[in-house]
Amino acid sequence: MTYDDGLLAPGSAGTPAEAATSDAAFLRAMLDAEAALARVQAPPEAAGAITAACAGEFGVRDLALRARAGGNPVIPLVDGLAAAVPEYARPYVHRGATSQDILDTAAMLVATRALAPVLADLERTAVALRALAAGHRDTVMPGRTLTQHAVPTTFGLKAAGWRALVLDARDRVAAVRDRLPAQLGGAAGTLAAFEAYGCDDAPALVAAYAREVGLAEPALPWHTLRTPVADLAGSLAFTAGALGKVAADVLSLSRTEVGEVVEGSGGGSSAMPHKANPVRATLIAAAARRAPAHAAVLYGSVAAGDERPAGAWHAEWEPLRDLLRLVGGAAHHAARLAEGLRVHPERMRANLALTDGLIVSERLRARFRKDRLTRAAEEVRTTGRSLADVLGVPPELTDPAHYTGAAAQLTDRALERR
Amino acid sequence: MTYDDGLLAPGSAGTPAEAATSDAAFLRAMLDAEAALARVQAPPEAAGAITAACAGEFGVRDLALRARAGGNPVIPLVDGLAAAVPEYARPYVHRGATSQDILDTAAMLVATRALAPVLADLERTAVALRALAAGHRDTVMPGRTLTQHAVPTTFGLKAAGWRALVLDARDRVAAVRDRLPAQLGGAAGTLAAFEAYGCDDAPALVAAYAREVGLAEPALPWHTLRTPVADLAGSLAFTAGALGKVAADVLSLSRTEVGEVVEGSGGGSSAMPHKANPVRATLIAAAARRAPAHAAVLYGSVAAGDERPAGAWHAEWEPLRDLLRLVGGAAHHAARLAEGLRVHPERMRANLALTDGLIVSERLRARFRKDRLTRAAEEVRTTGRSLADVLGVPPELTDPAHYTGAAAQLTDRALERR
Amino acid sequence: MTYDDGLLAPGSAGTPAEAATSDAAFLRAMLDAEAALARVQAPPEAAGAITAACAGEFGVRDLALRARAGGNPVIPLVDGLAAAVPEYARPYVHRGATSQDILDTAAMLVATRALAPVLADLERTAVALRALAAGHRDTVMPGRTLTQHAVPTTFGLKAAGWRALVLDARDRVAAVRDRLPAQLGGAAGTLAAFEAYGCDDAPALVAAYAREVGLAEPALPWHTLRTPVADLAGSLAFTAGALGKVAADVLSLSRTEVGEVVEGSGGGSSAMPHKANPVRATLIAAAARRAPAHAAVLYGSVAAGDERPAGAWHAEWEPLRDLLRLVGGAAHHAARLAEGLRVHPERMRANLALTDGLIVSERLRARFRKDRLTRAAEEVRTTGRSLADVLGVPPELTDPAHYTGAAAQLTDRALERR
Amino acid sequence: MTYDDGLLAPGSAGTPAEAATSDAAFLRAMLDAEAALARVQAPPEAAGAITAACAGEFGVRDLALRARAGGNPVIPLVDGLAAAVPEYARPYVHRGATSQDILDTAAMLVATRALAPVLADLERTAVALRALAAGHRDTVMPGRTLTQHAVPTTFGLKAAGWRALVLDARDRVAAVRDRLPAQLGGAAGTLAAFEAYGCDDAPALVAAYAREVGLAEPALPWHTLRTPVADLAGSLAFTAGALGKVAADVLSLSRTEVGEVVEGSGGGSSAMPHKANPVRATLIAAAARRAPAHAAVLYGSVAAGDERPAGAWHAEWEPLRDLLRLVGGAAHHAARLAEGLRVHPERMRANLALTDGLIVSERLRARFRKDRLTRAAEEVRTTGRSLADVLGVPPELTDPAHYTGAAAQLTDRALERR
Repeated sequence: MTYDDGLLAPGSAGTPAEAATSDAAFLRAMLDAEAALARVQAPPEAAGAITAACAGEFGVRDLALRARAGGNPVIPLVDGLAAAVPEYARPYVHRGATSQDILDTAAMLVATRALAPVLADLERTAVALRALAAGHRDTVMPGRTLTQHAVPTTFGLKAAGWRALVLDARDRVAAVRDRLPAQLGGAAGTLAAFEAYGCDDAPALVAAYAREVGLAEPALPWHTLRTPVADLAGSLAFTAGALGKVAADVLSLSRTEVGEVVEGSGGGSSAMPHKANPVRATLIAAAARRAPAHAAVLYGSVAAGDERPAGAWHAEWEPLRDLLRLVGGAAHHAARLAEGLRVHPERMRANLALTDGLIVSERLRARFRKDRLTRAAEEVRTTGRSLADVLGVPPELTDPAHYTGAAAQLTDRALERR
Repeated sequence: MTYDDGLLAPGSAGTPAEAATSDAAFLRAMLDAEAALARVQAPPEAAGAITAACAGEFGVRDLALRARAGGNPVIPLVDGLAAAVPEYARPYVHRGATSQDILDTAAMLVATRALAPVLADLERTAVALRALAAGHRDTVMPGRTLTQHAVPTTFGLKAAGWRALVLDARDRVAAVRDRLPAQLGGAAGTLAAFEAYGCDDAPALVAAYAREVGLAEPALPWHTLRTPVADLAGSLAFTAGALGKVAADVLSLSRTEVGEVVEGSGGGSSAMPHKANPVRATLIAAAARRAPAHAAVLYGSVAAGDERPAGAWHAEWEPLRDLLRLVGGAAHHAARLAEGLRVHPERMRANLALTDGLIVSERLRARFRKDRLTRAAEEVRTTGRSLADVLGVPPELTDPAHYTGAAAQLTDRALERR
Repeated sequence: MTYDDGLLAPGSAGTPAEAATSDAAFLRAMLDAEAALARVQAPPEAAGAITAACAGEFGVRDLALRARAGGNPVIPLVDGLAAAVPEYARPYVHRGATSQDILDTAAMLVATRALAPVLADLERTAVALRALAAGHRDTVMPGRTLTQHAVPTTFGLKAAGWRALVLDARDRVAAVRDRLPAQLGGAAGTLAAFEAYGCDDAPALVAAYAREVGLAEPALPWHTLRTPVADLAGSLAFTAGALGKVAADVLSLSRTEVGEVVEGSGGGSSAMPHKANPVRATLIAAAARRAPAHAAVLYGSVAAGDERPAGAWHAEWEPLRDLLRLVGGAAHHAARLAEGLRVHPERMRANLALTDGLIVSERLRARFRKDRLTRAAEEVRTTGRSLADVLGVPPELTDPAHYTGAAAQLTDRALERR
Repeated sequence: MTYDDGLLAPGSAGTPAEAATSDAAFLRAMLDAEAALARVQAPPEAAGAITAACAGEFGVRDLALRARAGGNPVIPLVDGLAAAVPEYARPYVHRGATSQDILDTAAMLVATRALAPVLADLERTAVALRALAAGHRDTVMPGRTLTQHAVPTTFGLKAAGWRALVLDARDRVAAVRDRLPAQLGGAAGTLAAFEAYGCDDAPALVAAYAREVGLAEPALPWHTLRTPVADLAGSLAFTAGALGKVAADVLSLSRTEVGEVVEGSGGGSSAMPHKANPVRATLIAAAARRAPAHAAVLYGSVAAGDERPAGAWHAEWEPLRDLLRLVGGAAHHAARLAEGLRVHPERMRANLALTDGLIVSERLRARFRKDRLTRAAEEVRTTGRSLADVLGVPPELTDPAHYTGAAAQLTDRALERR
């Protein structure tokens, strides 16, 4: 029986983030955590045997079913691991650890690994957006507010703004990723079991374990101090929103009537031969709608009771995975969307003309009183005459291309950011 | 590569709801929809050929990957189906339909199928809770408010309350399930293509399709009229909360210091031999933490633009599936939790004595002024003398067992509900 | 100091729902609850005195500040009420009740009262939408999917769909409103105090209280059985979404480039004289973005621990109020939006022509193979020739007005619903 | 009529954060923004006149009602301001700005001001928690996992963990606060109007305005680049969760049966004279339940369309205010809770004894096989004999006080952090 193989997830199916967050990837990371734990506290031979066993195969589905009894997959995994190592190594399997040590460490490993393609795709997106912004530094288009033409802007400034958001996302994700910690606290975060087994400096053991597994050293066991998970939640929800902004604009600008941009690889339809749908933008927009809800669950789990909670922790696993996957998929599509976006300056110009000059009415505020302009706007709308004509000003004064303010200067400045 | 096989979902792994909401189940339902559509509009031979092809195997992962191009899995499925039928049947494959017709119909079929075990488990839960309520109709225990002992109550009333919530959930889920509609609207909900292919009463075709596929007839195509999805969201989020209430109480009552109830099958620990964790309650509590976020996404998607939206619809698929699965798992565990719950009246009695009679101080409000009682309470707390002693009243007046109010009467009345 | 007087809430400021959910309205409802409680259990004179005192003025801000000590406003209100009645009536003030009895009853009264204008506005909206649907039964416009023109539809069908959603919302809200219960359980839901004060049939007292206060009789005290609150959450979140769908479409259709509808009373801008913004649709859309989050909090509070919880209940008050207010404001604006909406069939026709016939390419699926149509679509796009010309078919075959399928029939049928 | 004066908000009523986020405070901040804008671009006399007018009174309720027409309160405020200044100053009122410039700047000012007491209260909380941690460095108590006694821990480590979370919150909030930017972009973010009015370096004007108003200089107008709002959302939701963790533990530990901590100022009950409720923890817990939903709305609004959106922006105002207020209230109560918390080491010791030594069973894993320990645990539970007795080991080996691992060392290390 196939459970979830991405059939309902076209936004992430086949992306590196999907693979990096699969059950197999979580299992791999749990085994990495167990192996690292063995290497920092077991005699070399036992550590080697456990590490070797951890390179073996364990059945995901079997573990999933056996996870029900204790409520998490580490318990059956430890049983399986113990059975897979020689007698002499067995006492060192999972020694001193609690399930949450392994699963939290694994989640941080999975996050670290899944964020690599996310960051790469954000970088690619930013590079493509830089090219769009630079290339269209002076391409005039309607600025739209509350759905209506407001004043002109440039596609360069729009793309530079998209890029700024993407860089904000990159910076936040990268900062969070660089401090994701290993977890090791034992049953209730006191490291007592390690001492019971003879370790005389348990905090040093934690540091060694963190180094071995390749994560940051935690200041304290964080079974119920969930800062790392919350930081991931925030940075990922923001990234989904940032890419969602780009997607929202692409969807708007590619509406049939607007036609100012077109996705390079429009998606077909099962019914209509002529359609070229903005599929990537659609999938990104869908991710942006979903990510905040996952983040809310994760923020909610910060208020976790006791030394290890009954529910708050268990509620984190899938939302964290889904968030990584959604954002991974969105970043993947955003990079390709940005790289392939086709821009139609001629449609922008045509659209700028739609309001017969009204789009620059603001510019005349310095010359005319507001009520005069309001009456003029009404006249333009009812008669179809141009604003310049109605007001008796030179046409160049109502040329949208001459009313883009500091757009070019702002674009240049924004592109200085690395 | 294994994507999701339940490793992070001990709350639903191995339950009927998990299987009923798998990718395989969605694929099955999509094929059921395509087959039903063929049977109501194709000549018998072609309908038979398509129905036969729909009984065949299609690779979920392959469809998932090919779904990316158009943004949904129906497009590649239709291609695959067309390739799998004889030439004469091909024109009837998916004829007149849009992807969303098939996927929405499939989602409603999946929901209908997944809700059968949910409803059965809610019923089982209610039966077990009835037995607990009836059996403990007069078992006195501390009533607790804002974490503190307030006045006595009975375990019977508590269990009767749990049952009332579960029945509320059952009623809401059943009512929603009974009106889940098929979807058929064609490209933009006008049914135009069916007429183009010669159908002279397209609404009648929709009715026939709904009957054939076993769902309610929709009043209108509901591509962007998402009442059925919102109704599912609300009833499922409520069910998760209702079971979450039971779980919250079980978690509280089974704390080591309280010990008034114990899960029949406590879960072990990877580290501590003595532990018997309330695992089912924990998994239910985790589901209750997550369900509202999924419902929020689904309610958010009601505001879907145009005739078919770019993102709002795509954002529904996984949250709806996850919600069905979370609630299915929670109901599964709730039934077993309720059936196996061990109740310890002696611990309840011992706990009732903890406050030396203060738990019935309210009862004496009719005899003493509030400030006198407040002083007496202080005296009880500091001296350890009993409240009866301090106030000079007969001890039976401060016997918690004699101050349960209408608990038994309320319990009886609540159990009359079917 | 002014706290919140609607400055940040243009969507609800000045609407009946805002007033009906104000602090003053909550205070009024709490006093109504206390008065009703007195009338069903106190001697006539005392009941009269308490009822009279409940008609008096209590300072909201003072109560708000004194509410902090005990965590809810009922505690200081009861103190104030006791001080305001004659000595002989004092023992009957709040007798037997707990704070939650009063606040929950008040919340249900507030909801009942706030839903009256909501239902009236939904009804008004539906009436206006019926007129739009009937009047534009045959007004052809582009059907849009994934932002692109798909096939033609009619504005009549679109408006009929909006109306169906609004009626779905009305039905759900009305059904919930009609069963909102009074709350009376005493300290822990056993009604014990009422018996201690001499009442020999406490459940009958609850029934009398519910009648007196004008709410449904609860089957059980529902301090932690939060079905009524969850039902409100679901029906209100759905209503926000339903109105949000209308708003989303209005926003889309009134974009400068589309121009198919215009809000009757467009809002001005602080900077641009020419702008007529779709302000009502904007405010409704904002409400639709926010409502699901409030509903999620309320669904989350269903999992409330113990006999009365420490936090879950307190977390309900403001989200419930905000939800009522957001939906009340949205319904208010929706009615006026629907009544004032200006529809521009000529813009619809112009937009239908934008794709040179491609919008009916689906219709030709019955005559041409898909690949032929795809090539033709490409040719139309690149050459600007019409689809009829490229394919050599009679122009009427590609007339959008002749390809609206069952739109009129569906519209008629939908309008039969009352 | 009183709208919202905190009657339903005991968690924040009367706190500095409530006042700092009131409608009056928003109005004040909007006026500050208008005054600053005048001072950086108007001649001295006009700037002075506008600044003077901005110090005047404007009716909040009147503005709220007039805000409906244009959808935001800046439009009527600008009208009022223009009417309040002499003719010569009028052209400089709001010159070149759009409503969102003023409202966004005001929101950042409000946030900056509201965060000052939040940060101060977080600092106070941390100081109090340091004292608790240091004072109870060696106070042994049960460590609890999944609601059950696991192994011993210390109250010192628990308090040190709380403090670490609070410091994490402080650091995140402070970092965000320090970079909150002013907003100035004009109608569509191009600063065009400023140039139309004769400004030859509009970006320099933005910088001057930011300095004048006391906020960071934005890299770009951020009308639809909502990083600052998202950063606030994340840091505040995290803070609510961090304080919610403290509250969750206090609620648990102060349950009648546990009794290990007691709030210094327990709240009374309207019905039960003896009750001392953990009111502060309850109010904090309620805030923690609500904050993530507000953050989700704000993250959702990052995906804002166009140059200024129709709904996404409007949906931010109240959630941002509510989030600041909820967190402000929670921090206020957390500081007082931490300062007044009474700790009962004797109850901790008594509770440690409840499991007859099983709480240290983990310690014996190094000496006994797991199945032997499991059998021994069963024997302890059924016979009531102590674990030491059953296993025949010296009693000191099962003394919880001797099995606290690295708790003291971890506590010391955690307290080194400033």
